[in-house]
Amino acid sequence: MLCSTRFTLSRFPVLYRIFHTGSDGRIMAKSKFEYVREFEADDTCLRNCWVVIRLDGRNFHRFSEQHNFSKPNDARALHLMNRCAQNVMQELEDILLAYGQSDEYSFVFHKKSNWFKRRASKFITHVASQFASSFVFYWKDYFAEQPLLYPPGFDGRAVLYPSDQNLKDYLSWRQADCHINNLYNTVFWSLVQEGGLTPSQAQERLRGTVAADKNEIMFSEFNINYNNEPLMYRKGTLLLWQKVNEVTMKKIKMPQEAEEKEVQVTRSRSQTVPLHCDIIGELFWEEHPELLSDTS
Amino acid sequence: MLCSTRFTLSRFPVLYRIFHTGSDGRIMAKSKFEYVREFEADDTCLRNCWVVIRLDGRNFHRFSEQHNFSKPNDARALHLMNRCAQNVMQELEDILLAYGQSDEYSFVFHKKSNWFKRRASKFITHVASQFASSFVFYWKDYFAEQPLLYPPGFDGRAVLYPSDQNLKDYLSWRQADCHINNLYNTVFWSLVQEGGLTPSQAQERLRGTVAADKNEIMFSEFNINYNNEPLMYRKGTLLLWQKVNEVTMKKIKMPQEAEEKEVQVTRSRSQTVPLHCDIIGELFWEEHPELLSDTS
Amino acid sequence: MLCSTRFTLSRFPVLYRIFHTGSDGRIMAKSKFEYVREFEADDTCLRNCWVVIRLDGRNFHRFSEQHNFSKPNDARALHLMNRCAQNVMQELEDILLAYGQSDEYSFVFHKKSNWFKRRASKFITHVASQFASSFVFYWKDYFAEQPLLYPPGFDGRAVLYPSDQNLKDYLSWRQADCHINNLYNTVFWSLVQEGGLTPSQAQERLRGTVAADKNEIMFSEFNINYNNEPLMYRKGTLLLWQKVNEVTMKKIKMPQEAEEKEVQVTRSRSQTVPLHCDIIGELFWEEHPELLSDTS
Amino acid sequence: MLCSTRFTLSRFPVLYRIFHTGSDGRIMAKSKFEYVREFEADDTCLRNCWVVIRLDGRNFHRFSEQHNFSKPNDARALHLMNRCAQNVMQELEDILLAYGQSDEYSFVFHKKSNWFKRRASKFITHVASQFASSFVFYWKDYFAEQPLLYPPGFDGRAVLYPSDQNLKDYLSWRQADCHINNLYNTVFWSLVQEGGLTPSQAQERLRGTVAADKNEIMFSEFNINYNNEPLMYRKGTLLLWQKVNEVTMKKIKMPQEAEEKEVQVTRSRSQTVPLHCDIIGELFWEEHPELLSDTS
Repeated sequence: MLCSTRFTLSRFPVLYRIFHTGSDGRIMAKSKFEYVREFEADDTCLRNCWVVIRLDGRNFHRFSEQHNFSKPNDARALHLMNRCAQNVMQELEDILLAYGQSDEYSFVFHKKSNWFKRRASKFITHVASQFASSFVFYWKDYFAEQPLLYPPGFDGRAVLYPSDQNLKDYLSWRQADCHINNLYNTVFWSLVQEGGLTPSQAQERLRGTVAADKNEIMFSEFNINYNNEPLMYRKGTLLLWQKVNEVTMKKIKMPQEAEEKEVQVTRSRSQTVPLHCDIIGELFWEEHPELLSDTS
Repeated sequence: MLCSTRFTLSRFPVLYRIFHTGSDGRIMAKSKFEYVREFEADDTCLRNCWVVIRLDGRNFHRFSEQHNFSKPNDARALHLMNRCAQNVMQELEDILLAYGQSDEYSFVFHKKSNWFKRRASKFITHVASQFASSFVFYWKDYFAEQPLLYPPGFDGRAVLYPSDQNLKDYLSWRQADCHINNLYNTVFWSLVQEGGLTPSQAQERLRGTVAADKNEIMFSEFNINYNNEPLMYRKGTLLLWQKVNEVTMKKIKMPQEAEEKEVQVTRSRSQTVPLHCDIIGELFWEEHPELLSDTS
Repeated sequence: MLCSTRFTLSRFPVLYRIFHTGSDGRIMAKSKFEYVREFEADDTCLRNCWVVIRLDGRNFHRFSEQHNFSKPNDARALHLMNRCAQNVMQELEDILLAYGQSDEYSFVFHKKSNWFKRRASKFITHVASQFASSFVFYWKDYFAEQPLLYPPGFDGRAVLYPSDQNLKDYLSWRQADCHINNLYNTVFWSLVQEGGLTPSQAQERLRGTVAADKNEIMFSEFNINYNNEPLMYRKGTLLLWQKVNEVTMKKIKMPQEAEEKEVQVTRSRSQTVPLHCDIIGELFWEEHPELLSDTS
Repeated sequence: MLCSTRFTLSRFPVLYRIFHTGSDGRIMAKSKFEYVREFEADDTCLRNCWVVIRLDGRNFHRFSEQHNFSKPNDARALHLMNRCAQNVMQELEDILLAYGQSDEYSFVFHKKSNWFKRRASKFITHVASQFASSFVFYWKDYFAEQPLLYPPGFDGRAVLYPSDQNLKDYLSWRQADCHINNLYNTVFWSLVQEGGLTPSQAQERLRGTVAADKNEIMFSEFNINYNNEPLMYRKGTLLLWQKVNEVTMKKIKMPQEAEEKEVQVTRSRSQTVPLHCDIIGELFWEEHPELLSDTS
């Protein structure tokens, strides 16, 4: 042990210099080891590109079984995911919007962001850790009666998109994925839960069907109009920033007056709002021109 | 809204083909957008290198103030950090060891690991999210009387070390950092808490002192023998794998016998154990030759 | 020596199997070593970005001294550089344009290019090697009386630009650099060559001067109107593709006619043309809308 | 044109300020554009790893046809390749050794090298351009009667190897490749050139044969003992540094003596030497312990 007998010796003045040397040695030791910092690679994201961080739940199939999630969608779980994503947007910097569906969430950092010098590892670990800690923290607000059995994990990746069109297509890709999966899952679980089929029978029944066939099965056999299914299930959730005015009453004392007076104070602050609208196609972007402005 | 009136229309056979086309279109749409996947960069870690993932608490200075951590060390917080790191080692694959001190933790993936094809983003997001969710999950086990006020964040980075010596030097660097900071913090908070100095007076008092001076101040003024301070504070915590034998009693029925019989069953499993020893210098590695064997 | 006595033995049938095994072993050996290919990193350039490769002459200060380049500009050397760049554009794929000045040349690969799967190492080594071999190959066409003393080197780098504006600004940056250096060099060498100053006196004389001062010195002392200096020196060289019609005479035999007939054949092909115009500002790009079209 | 009428105006004092502003504007313009430098990515090679740069001739199949290379090996071309590689080793820094065969050459930079801060793009473009310019420059020394028709290109890549064993295996891989190809090519061209087979007949004849079969064909049909083929063809070429003593005569005048006296002066310098030995297996490395020493 390097330092185990050090201090007892140091009480004897004659050994002081040795010890002194030893302590310098420890500091020198640190500087001797510091060369290992040079092995860190620079992972700066290319400038002027949209930085998308996408998280996916780790083994969430198993996780949803163990926590008795309802199928094909568990509203509590989706709302919890949205709550975590809102926390991520509030705690971190420069996130323009986020989009989530199923057990995944994508966060879009502004193309002009210089947060942590655009280091990819900073972006993805801050997002992943803040989302994961929020998931446990807010769990009880959505699963009051259902204890969390173990702390879940999430994996993440960073992807760069140079043009606005690339970014729109990325978000369209995730929403198209949401649509296709949710349509399939909705009819699949109708066949199983209402129709009494086994999962493999349901799978067999759906082989080769297109969207119209699936809609037809749901409507004719289970009286489900897919279009009336909740928008959150069919479209996923988009989180945008919104300015809101907070009106509060405040007591102030005017110089010329003897008594305090209560006045109304309006403060503007930004908060995130969830939307469940279509983001495939140009309409959404035309209605929100501010999102992609000031980018050239 | 792209699909808002879709299904109501689809009840009219004459429009079926349009809708059908639409649904194909949606699937086609997805494949049309899928080109965005090609923007993902390959972040494979160079093979045959040690992969070190280091996490740091985000704004933990503020966090420790708000949660009334004792100074200079809060044993509950350190034990919680260790607990989270153990969970990370158990949940993820191929972690050889971990080393933690203060609000940071380093995880060493084996140089031969091919977990998730060695993708750096997978390594760091799994570690960061598992650690963060564990932190909230296990909080109450260490801070029973103290509620967690908000979900904390952690940032992480991946660093590659080609040689065993580089890895040893990395760990030595972190332990030397632990030593230097803890020595300083211990005397600093003695001066403030016991000596009645203000923080800036304490800082002034310590300016230019070497280790021997600090030891001397602690001993002569506060009767603290730094060497008797807890090892966890002075050395940090190293987590290693250890095979343990679990002995359980089990009832079995032998073919020739009428009655069940209770027998002792021994099972071997791996668990992580915390050590607070010196890892600067060769002694530790000589005592644990298995750690760096089979690596060429 | 692994295989030195192999074949002599192989004449003896009894040893055949041993040798056979040996030869299999050699092939097995190769496959045993092939794992080293997995250490190659993926250096794909992010899609939908302009890929700029810039070359710089290595130690061209020394090179120009040893080959008696005239100062401040050597027309032969600049024309040779342009010739090499034209060869690069013709031999490689997907280069939209190139810009050169002094001993540097930048090549812009199209943002949609998928040449060699956009691998950065392929882009830069092909450009660097083709330029360098061309430099030696075409040297005698520009330096007839002056032998090349040794083969020169060039270093290169790849830089990605996501937006058209970024690309324009890159080219503007290089041309602004050309302007500033050439203005300085022109007056500097006038002071030395015509004015009889030493280089350090000339340097001193120019300290703190702005462009107008330099123009004034050239005009009043050396009767040089900087604006009449050759455009290639002041603006550098831009290489663009141009469709040209080649008219050739060809003898063909018509089916109905007895004799061959000479006809005029027009073929269109692309060639590179050098321009020495201003590329700072929008005018150039407005006059060449085709360069940045079809990019979104 | 931004600056076309500038100077004529500058003769009129009243316009001076405008012009002056203009010139400042140009310098400001440059600094305004300089942000584009931040798009350069850091491509530093991980420290403490061997850096291997491998070049391959571009379209050398066509090149060798057009320049009438003899088959299966053209000694002139191989010696020219070696000459180029020697020039690369002499001109650049920190190259430990090089290995070439066919139209490829690998250069090994020392794992401790810090040349150009270990930037991969610097390594590969310097190697590629120096090799390519040397190829044209030294061509006439090896192909006196045969003019070079056009400047050839080379592509290159950088690969990092963390351990000495990885490096040895890389070199073994390339030499095993040399052996397998050369054995095949030698018997293939014997069948075509001596045996009168067409290339496709020769290919058919060799399908499924192992090394012993090929040796047997060469020996029994063409009286070729493959083992007597030149080592350079069978083993490729390894370039190592060697200290040599140069002895020259020099006239010096001693202080005490009236006349100049001729003395023998010995100077040591490093030069590259070509070897054609086996580098698969440990023997070579045992005989050259200096190559991999001082690396930990």
